[in-house]
Amino acid sequence: MSATVAYLGPAGTFTEEALWRLVEGLGEVTPLPVDSPSEALNAVREGRAQWAVVAIENSVDGAVTSTSDAFLEAPGVQIFGEVELPISFAIMTRPGFSLIDATRFSTHPVAHRQVRRWLNQNLPSVEYLAATSNAAAAQAVAEGKADVAAAPLRAADLFGLEVHASGIADLATARTRFVLAGPTGVPTPRTGDDRTSVVFQLPNEAGTLVGALHEFAYRGVDLTRIESRPTREEANTYNFYVDLVGHIDDIPLAEALRSLWLRASRVTFLGSWPRYRSEDTGVVPSAMMDPARLAQAEDWVRAARTGELGD
Amino acid sequence: MSATVAYLGPAGTFTEEALWRLVEGLGEVTPLPVDSPSEALNAVREGRAQWAVVAIENSVDGAVTSTSDAFLEAPGVQIFGEVELPISFAIMTRPGFSLIDATRFSTHPVAHRQVRRWLNQNLPSVEYLAATSNAAAAQAVAEGKADVAAAPLRAADLFGLEVHASGIADLATARTRFVLAGPTGVPTPRTGDDRTSVVFQLPNEAGTLVGALHEFAYRGVDLTRIESRPTREEANTYNFYVDLVGHIDDIPLAEALRSLWLRASRVTFLGSWPRYRSEDTGVVPSAMMDPARLAQAEDWVRAARTGELGD
Amino acid sequence: MSATVAYLGPAGTFTEEALWRLVEGLGEVTPLPVDSPSEALNAVREGRAQWAVVAIENSVDGAVTSTSDAFLEAPGVQIFGEVELPISFAIMTRPGFSLIDATRFSTHPVAHRQVRRWLNQNLPSVEYLAATSNAAAAQAVAEGKADVAAAPLRAADLFGLEVHASGIADLATARTRFVLAGPTGVPTPRTGDDRTSVVFQLPNEAGTLVGALHEFAYRGVDLTRIESRPTREEANTYNFYVDLVGHIDDIPLAEALRSLWLRASRVTFLGSWPRYRSEDTGVVPSAMMDPARLAQAEDWVRAARTGELGD
Amino acid sequence: MSATVAYLGPAGTFTEEALWRLVEGLGEVTPLPVDSPSEALNAVREGRAQWAVVAIENSVDGAVTSTSDAFLEAPGVQIFGEVELPISFAIMTRPGFSLIDATRFSTHPVAHRQVRRWLNQNLPSVEYLAATSNAAAAQAVAEGKADVAAAPLRAADLFGLEVHASGIADLATARTRFVLAGPTGVPTPRTGDDRTSVVFQLPNEAGTLVGALHEFAYRGVDLTRIESRPTREEANTYNFYVDLVGHIDDIPLAEALRSLWLRASRVTFLGSWPRYRSEDTGVVPSAMMDPARLAQAEDWVRAARTGELGD
Repeated sequence: MSATVAYLGPAGTFTEEALWRLVEGLGEVTPLPVDSPSEALNAVREGRAQWAVVAIENSVDGAVTSTSDAFLEAPGVQIFGEVELPISFAIMTRPGFSLIDATRFSTHPVAHRQVRRWLNQNLPSVEYLAATSNAAAAQAVAEGKADVAAAPLRAADLFGLEVHASGIADLATARTRFVLAGPTGVPTPRTGDDRTSVVFQLPNEAGTLVGALHEFAYRGVDLTRIESRPTREEANTYNFYVDLVGHIDDIPLAEALRSLWLRASRVTFLGSWPRYRSEDTGVVPSAMMDPARLAQAEDWVRAARTGELGD
Repeated sequence: MSATVAYLGPAGTFTEEALWRLVEGLGEVTPLPVDSPSEALNAVREGRAQWAVVAIENSVDGAVTSTSDAFLEAPGVQIFGEVELPISFAIMTRPGFSLIDATRFSTHPVAHRQVRRWLNQNLPSVEYLAATSNAAAAQAVAEGKADVAAAPLRAADLFGLEVHASGIADLATARTRFVLAGPTGVPTPRTGDDRTSVVFQLPNEAGTLVGALHEFAYRGVDLTRIESRPTREEANTYNFYVDLVGHIDDIPLAEALRSLWLRASRVTFLGSWPRYRSEDTGVVPSAMMDPARLAQAEDWVRAARTGELGD
Repeated sequence: MSATVAYLGPAGTFTEEALWRLVEGLGEVTPLPVDSPSEALNAVREGRAQWAVVAIENSVDGAVTSTSDAFLEAPGVQIFGEVELPISFAIMTRPGFSLIDATRFSTHPVAHRQVRRWLNQNLPSVEYLAATSNAAAAQAVAEGKADVAAAPLRAADLFGLEVHASGIADLATARTRFVLAGPTGVPTPRTGDDRTSVVFQLPNEAGTLVGALHEFAYRGVDLTRIESRPTREEANTYNFYVDLVGHIDDIPLAEALRSLWLRASRVTFLGSWPRYRSEDTGVVPSAMMDPARLAQAEDWVRAARTGELGD
Repeated sequence: MSATVAYLGPAGTFTEEALWRLVEGLGEVTPLPVDSPSEALNAVREGRAQWAVVAIENSVDGAVTSTSDAFLEAPGVQIFGEVELPISFAIMTRPGFSLIDATRFSTHPVAHRQVRRWLNQNLPSVEYLAATSNAAAAQAVAEGKADVAAAPLRAADLFGLEVHASGIADLATARTRFVLAGPTGVPTPRTGDDRTSVVFQLPNEAGTLVGALHEFAYRGVDLTRIESRPTREEANTYNFYVDLVGHIDDIPLAEALRSLWLRASRVTFLGSWPRYRSEDTGVVPSAMMDPARLAQAEDWVRAARTGELGD
């Protein structure tokens, strides 16, 4: 029995590369290329796929807003894993085509923002055609709909294109984080180095955002990302996306989420899963999160409740 | 003596409409169409324009990230005014061209995200060509480079196009906020209903964001917007953009900015100016002790732990 | 089987009056008069009494520091109930003794501070002899060791004294709160209107007190009393006594205690028990942004700086 | 022209010792012994003395509550200096009187609490006579009104008594802090190591105390003492006494006081004066209090207000 995994296709995207990294250990897998993060998550929601792999955050351009929006389109999906890939692009044309003749350049809009400097220096006057994915841009070049694409090196192989330059990235350290989403379910077990993601809306009142974030900060739960997106439902209301260090089975994080729920008009839990790697930010974790001391503190409260403090 | 005002051109964009609203009272004005927010602000920085008008936030799609980035490219510009416009689009082709024959659709990417639903229903299979502005998309249609554009109604007049539908917007209440930027200088006088905008970077340590936001909250200074953008300079460092209710001549806001400066590794002041209109906000006390709601919250956490949230 | 209850004796003290109110429903009771709160609690610790009744707080003079200190002398005792009594004094002498001849006045030091005004007006030149209790002062008068006592009316009966004035109290609304202490055990069940008391020591660092109190405030747990007492063990270290509104079985209070435990170098749980009566409290929003009040505040600071506050 | 300085007399008290330390540099001085802190401050309020010296805090027993209360009896006095003295007692009788025959022991109540252990071990059954001062107790012994006194060694000389033991203190490190009070006026200049003292009342609402303390903590202003005393005016209202590290000319402290004023129903400023010595608590002062950085931050805000940021 093979598991179907939806991803931003066609074959040759970075998302496909992330897919093969994320499904290690899931047994046999059938990739299902789709045209957007929204379609990938809907494939899971509708049972056409068991998993979806989507890009969630880019170190150059920030949150992938189409993915952020896709997670809120409907309930039913949850994140279970992540991987981070270094991102750089190859510049490719049909074989024998000279860059000097290129008038139509294509890539995904997020990729576009990551190669702007290179474009300004090398192809300043080309027209930009937005593609649904980087590999789709390569395919468009192969089909003659565009002249030049910025795409993963592997896409050149897949679509028989000629590579003029590779390792192209305005920022050498560019990385993209991809997540593995499945149907809502039990989170992966706590590993001690996990990430939790939630989205919430707040009453449109002064101080509510700081109040909500304080629930995390005060308990020593660190925030690694915050994004706000208009709800599209009501003016001046936002969905706040936050990534937290910790697992919903960590007591302080669970309490913070509960308190957040009390403050929020709506909270969506996107999952708790192992972090790809601890970013070594030099941040010392709060003593408030130390599981051993927390257990002692819980014991102390329990003893006070049950009259066992005195001996 | 006429003042030159750079804006996202060509004529016919919503930005041009905003321009005419914002320059009322500035005397004679010469519009200078440019291709991006970055170019508009650079025209001011380099003295080729006295003012620039740029879109800063959209009620459907959030911050206009290219504008956010443009403000940080270099110092020397500051915001002095704002206006908000309702946004809807006309669908236009060359005269006599049938929508049924359209294969190439063009508009600005932000506009694209605001008419997605209409496109899916009416032109599901067209290719999307990203334009530098909505009016540029209309121009591309006039020049035969695209078949159909979503653009302001006025652009059809300007480029001699035929309108097939108007008032198109996935969200009827869509609005965009535009600001008037000029060279760094003395802010407009405090009116009692002002907005202040700053961008800051924080030491990469746990709790610094809440600490910084607390400087505002604790002094009763309300935040109406927060965005984080990777700095592109260093991994895991962000520029935080915040819009505040109040003027730098309001004592609590000035003190909050001063304390922010002490906490931040970098602060950029984008200006204090009169708000286009007051959004109504009201403060509601906390319900953190309500046993019934607490029980509900506990249930919610338990459900998240046990995978029972989805039904 | 009668329960022994230690209290500040001899018979005739307010503490004895409180005792009879607090032991209602405890069955047969044998009062055990002792000379101090410390002795009363030690009688429980050593098993010579099942209960102790001690004065804990006075509405005129604040915490009864000897009681505060007594609770920390050793572990093994816990509070299970409370009562509040209105406090006023009778002025008594041996029968036939004229007030005009009195040279030696006796009462308990706390009582002394509550009848100071009356003394200044009526017996300005008497010598003050500190008594271990008000009833002990009456006894001293009966025994000729003092001439006049301020004590509960009932003490005059018990010791055969003549009352010259009654209802004496510098502050008409004076009240004292007494608690019923027993061996450490399971707290009384949560009633929904309870009090919890803890004592804690904090690391001697800037901000630790606010941090600890914040654990309560942030969770909506109200503080009705805070006292600091030097530890007598180490310079500049204090025991902080706080009374909280709520029961250790209230979730926010339990969490606050657990977090306090994590922050504190030492926490002593003194019990959770039903409040004698609810004090009315209401939460009012902040007026921190009112320009008129801000101007007044600025004036006040300036006046303090320039020595103009005094007029 | 000699300055009159009121103090807790008679000669021979620790307060007199503090007086001579505090008036160094004030020129010729005439000590005026009085019977209580209240009388000392009233002598200043009524112009009968230029200065008063009163004990304010004891490292063993905490705040001297009679002094706390005295400062609030009326306006018109302010603190201008402080000194700290190590405290231990001599045990003295009339010459030739044997301790074994002593039945009446006298000292000041605060001193009483500091020699309790010694008393329990050496004179367990003596009657305690409260004295208005330790030297007054020595005087009472000299006059035959008491048998034995605990008082400063110097009092034995002054009253011709025999010393049976000296250096008596339950806690070897006991110290008392005394302050020099004068008529309300300009505080002594900021030295960089100052203390500020205020007393405030808060609206009787949940969270107001933490809110008020937070004004200090958030600005990096450290609290070294907090006491609460019932107001004697209204039930459940308290005067909170706080000692702060810093001077009212320190910007953060001044702002905190202003914000406190906004929150409080009443604030009394007791003065800013040089600390006797920095207690080395190992507490690192907050960067928020660094005068150089604060000046930079103030400059930045001013530049933003005056349009001078751009160059």
